[in-house]
Amino acid sequence: MLISSLQNPRVKDLVRLRDRRGRDHDQKLLIEGYRELLRAADAGYPVHELYLCPGLFQGTNEPALIERLRATGTQVVEVTEPVFHKFAYRDRPEGLIGVGPQLHRRLDDLPIPAHVPPLLLVAEAIEKPGNLGTMLRSADATGTTALIVCDPCTDIFNPNVVRASTGTLFTVPIAEAAPDEALAWLRARRVHILAATPHATRRFTDADLTGPVAIVVGTEQYGLSQRWLDACDLPVRIPMLGVADSLNVATATALVLYEAVRQRLAAGLAADPGPMAKD
Amino acid sequence: MLISSLQNPRVKDLVRLRDRRGRDHDQKLLIEGYRELLRAADAGYPVHELYLCPGLFQGTNEPALIERLRATGTQVVEVTEPVFHKFAYRDRPEGLIGVGPQLHRRLDDLPIPAHVPPLLLVAEAIEKPGNLGTMLRSADATGTTALIVCDPCTDIFNPNVVRASTGTLFTVPIAEAAPDEALAWLRARRVHILAATPHATRRFTDADLTGPVAIVVGTEQYGLSQRWLDACDLPVRIPMLGVADSLNVATATALVLYEAVRQRLAAGLAADPGPMAKD
Repeated sequence: MLISSLQNPRVKDLVRLRDRRGRDHDQKLLIEGYRELLRAADAGYPVHELYLCPGLFQGTNEPALIERLRATGTQVVEVTEPVFHKFAYRDRPEGLIGVGPQLHRRLDDLPIPAHVPPLLLVAEAIEKPGNLGTMLRSADATGTTALIVCDPCTDIFNPNVVRASTGTLFTVPIAEAAPDEALAWLRARRVHILAATPHATRRFTDADLTGPVAIVVGTEQYGLSQRWLDACDLPVRIPMLGVADSLNVATATALVLYEAVRQRLAAGLAADPGPMAKD
Repeated sequence: MLISSLQNPRVKDLVRLRDRRGRDHDQKLLIEGYRELLRAADAGYPVHELYLCPGLFQGTNEPALIERLRATGTQVVEVTEPVFHKFAYRDRPEGLIGVGPQLHRRLDDLPIPAHVPPLLLVAEAIEKPGNLGTMLRSADATGTTALIVCDPCTDIFNPNVVRASTGTLFTVPIAEAAPDEALAWLRARRVHILAATPHATRRFTDADLTGPVAIVVGTEQYGLSQRWLDACDLPVRIPMLGVADSLNVATATALVLYEAVRQRLAAGLAADPGPMAKD
């Protein structure tokens, strides 16, 4: 099948998915880019449709990925370049866009390992898709057990989350929960609730992060709400040696996650895959 | 003075500054937002002109900042809301935009402390203004000695750098240099050249970062060039426990900078200002 008309109803459906309203109504998301689709495929994420424009391919591995997806039941549709540009999200599109379902998970569906203390990330509200995607990338890299999203305003299926996450949106377990529900769930599992605040006495590198711990982060502009600050039993401080009083939220999150990794590697609670082999 | 016409030549001059070509030609930059202008003022950065639209103010501290800038010679101009929206960069403008000169510094103009080993950040090429701004914010927070920019493609005066840096563009010393010049300057000062690479044996938390060290970072897409990889005498690895093979460049930079802070605080080579007082 080749779509060459901008008036094709499929094209209109795809353009609709660029907006949150259309995405949420159809319960779908767009997955643009080779790396992102590869990670979705590796994670077993269902890609229902794949739109491709071979003239825009940037590498040589695309055909193998396309055949792999086709073999798992993905419907493959070729489109002309003007059509592709109509619904592509990126400035320099790579000629591959998939459509998949919005998968929603509840807290009790999360895979929580039995013998290792969980390392959790709780996003009270993150406004910028780029920050959320960067946090997912760090969560994947640190082997974070799961991300819990506590605010329906946070749009985890935004194409810029997919992009900034480089596809780790499909590999990090994510649950959505109301704040009270999340808090009760964490307390029932005796998870320490860690918040980074400039008023804390203890530096984040001096806190014991080898037990079950959830790092809670708030909005870029206002930080954590009082509800989560009150719930926090592990306040830590990231030293600020300059004039600014805060870091980017994705940066602060990565610092605490990696400090947990440093401590857990030293304690034998996590495994380091070691250096990557050179090609 | 009140500007109410979109045809006013000043408005056209300001709109020109939103584009790099106009900025570089005029050797000016835009400073939008209260926090960013406050940090510029605190740092003694010259703000030649200040455009304001009081109807858009979000706080109550703006008049004090305006008077402070006026007292240092800033020309203050009020504009109507349609005019402000014409040249504002942000989606939700705060009613304050300043214009300042592009200040360029050479390596030998950098303030290098004599008795503390320098902690330097070298950006070979960073493409996204948001990443560069976030890196400046982390450089400020870690007391980084200076940022050295080695690629003229990197646009440090982009309004999104100002914004993502939350004004720390004005507090972190920045020098521009050709790669060979930067390398010779670093070697003459016996600065170790650190690069994060997935092939390194040593983890970044196991490397000694208490001596003079420069963290070199490359483009988001391709990483460091061979030239800098060859020059690197301190290769380190950030453990990757998930499926992805790399982190966001601003995240990776912050991790290494803060590891240097952790080691320097423990060695008495840096001072932690301690917790911030509650209001």
